[in-house]
Amino acid sequence: MFDNKERTEIKDLGEFGLIEHLTKAIELQAPSSIKGIGDDAAVLDFGNKKTLISTDLLLEGVHFDLRYVPLRHLGYKAVQVNLSDIYAMNGTASQITFSIGLSSKFPLEAVEEIYEGALYACKKYNVDLIGGDTSASKQGLVISVTSIGYADEEAIAYRSGAQEGDLICVSGDLGGAYVGLQLLEREKQIYLENPSIQPDLEGKDYIIERQLKPEARKDIVELLAENSIKPTAMMDVSDGLSAELLHICKASDKGCKLFEDKIPLDPMTYETAREFGLDPTVCALNGGEDYELLFTIPQSDYDKIKGNMDITVIGYVTEAAAGCSMISKSGNVYPLTAQGWNAFQG
Amino acid sequence: MFDNKERTEIKDLGEFGLIEHLTKAIELQAPSSIKGIGDDAAVLDFGNKKTLISTDLLLEGVHFDLRYVPLRHLGYKAVQVNLSDIYAMNGTASQITFSIGLSSKFPLEAVEEIYEGALYACKKYNVDLIGGDTSASKQGLVISVTSIGYADEEAIAYRSGAQEGDLICVSGDLGGAYVGLQLLEREKQIYLENPSIQPDLEGKDYIIERQLKPEARKDIVELLAENSIKPTAMMDVSDGLSAELLHICKASDKGCKLFEDKIPLDPMTYETAREFGLDPTVCALNGGEDYELLFTIPQSDYDKIKGNMDITVIGYVTEAAAGCSMISKSGNVYPLTAQGWNAFQG
Repeated sequence: MFDNKERTEIKDLGEFGLIEHLTKAIELQAPSSIKGIGDDAAVLDFGNKKTLISTDLLLEGVHFDLRYVPLRHLGYKAVQVNLSDIYAMNGTASQITFSIGLSSKFPLEAVEEIYEGALYACKKYNVDLIGGDTSASKQGLVISVTSIGYADEEAIAYRSGAQEGDLICVSGDLGGAYVGLQLLEREKQIYLENPSIQPDLEGKDYIIERQLKPEARKDIVELLAENSIKPTAMMDVSDGLSAELLHICKASDKGCKLFEDKIPLDPMTYETAREFGLDPTVCALNGGEDYELLFTIPQSDYDKIKGNMDITVIGYVTEAAAGCSMISKSGNVYPLTAQGWNAFQG
Repeated sequence: MFDNKERTEIKDLGEFGLIEHLTKAIELQAPSSIKGIGDDAAVLDFGNKKTLISTDLLLEGVHFDLRYVPLRHLGYKAVQVNLSDIYAMNGTASQITFSIGLSSKFPLEAVEEIYEGALYACKKYNVDLIGGDTSASKQGLVISVTSIGYADEEAIAYRSGAQEGDLICVSGDLGGAYVGLQLLEREKQIYLENPSIQPDLEGKDYIIERQLKPEARKDIVELLAENSIKPTAMMDVSDGLSAELLHICKASDKGCKLFEDKIPLDPMTYETAREFGLDPTVCALNGGEDYELLFTIPQSDYDKIKGNMDITVIGYVTEAAAGCSMISKSGNVYPLTAQGWNAFQG
């Protein structure tokens, strides 16, 4: 895909040259970043805060398909996905390390695009890129991101703190990233069968963006702090609402009641799911990759969030013995099951 | 390689099941580990110390060859290589995250072996495994390790602090890992040509171990502290003595004189290099993967290390204008060049 344009071979730069080339414009911004790239390890200072660490591995053909993921978006998403885990602890992300393994089919320009996307995400979220590793790969493209953040001890929201009677809340809307993926997959198949047909994604910007360029919900963490809300439990929705809710209930030794008619769905998600013959609720429950925040709050905090368009109460926490279930639009009760994405399945 | 033994398919466990299975026996030991695996991010507390972070990506066919690297050793080495960067800052390693991407050709037993090796290294070095990511891979085996450590601000040894007149020291001996690799490569070729021939590695344990099971030099960091030595600059020798020394000189804006006859070589390294028609000095200069510590100290600290068998003074730091050179055994002067390993080359 780069063969007709400028093409600089990475082997001509070498590993040190490549790292130097990619990182020369990086300026550290976070007060906790003492030393970034350029030594054996980065040096960070978190004073009296607790340090948060999260890591993700993204592999070509498993987590992304380069036939429809632009490289800039890939770099951007790789960072967002990882920052999301820090926000899901109710913390502030402050640094990342960003490693790339890539085969010789990629010229320097391709790595630059991935890096540009990553750095754009860093800049937007006030995060420093402080280290990484860059290597040849015999196979496909490999990206590994580790994010580092901090929080006051009393602010940290674990999965395990949900209490009976707590309200279950979710930010934004769900299912869009999954439906966007179906759309991209369909257009890919059409393209593979007939490369002269242009992809038909008109009017579908929102769900395509949900898939290709998700945003970690730093704003929700800030909003909760501004309103003096400490979530009793919190996670990000990476594997689907159902799987995450079950995680919280299991870790908290609680049950839950979820209301189908409360699950926030964007109209475009709803319509496109229907076009594909999919149940929009199932897309929200099992689709994943929305990177919204799922959290529980005491009922006494309800007044603080009730006017907020970006937070929806979707159910409440029960005792463990009551199990985890969803009340459907027609009033039936269904047990929640974890059908989260299994990367090891075929 | 696992087909005739017990074989549990990873897809039957799923990602969550796999992580739970692999991590259930992990107990956190480091005082700074507040929360490890099992939430969106790990939580660490470094009090008033500075936090150190380093990361490495290891890819099948580039960094290791499964035809001669046992999986336990691979897990062990992946951790050592990364901890080595923390020690190279004169810090104490305290946690790692450990991520694996692997194709369906690997059964659960294979992942368990990698993990066992990693956990054995953690235990030996008093390091907690606090997170990671486990994913299917369409291609080969991918391992990503991030290590976290701490140090007092005044103890941190950057690459940039070498002063004119400082002594250049190195721990242990050099070149062994590279010569060990040549031996393994030769036996692999013989095996590929005639699988009935058993590998002939007798009497070569030391250099094979240098390649397959390197040890990060935590003991040297402790020894320096016990003797109240603060290295003015320090790095670990991962890309070869020459490349690392040039890094220190460049970062410190200094030059250096290295004495060939002072470079510590194990007799087995020397003899085996000769067998292969290689110059043992070149193996030490450009071989890499020894994971010894290369550091500079003021001349006034010489008395503190001179009796130590495990530390060798190999040269001294000069002004930048003098350049970086090696005085050969015959008294000739050669400029040092970075021929460190270029993973992007062919």
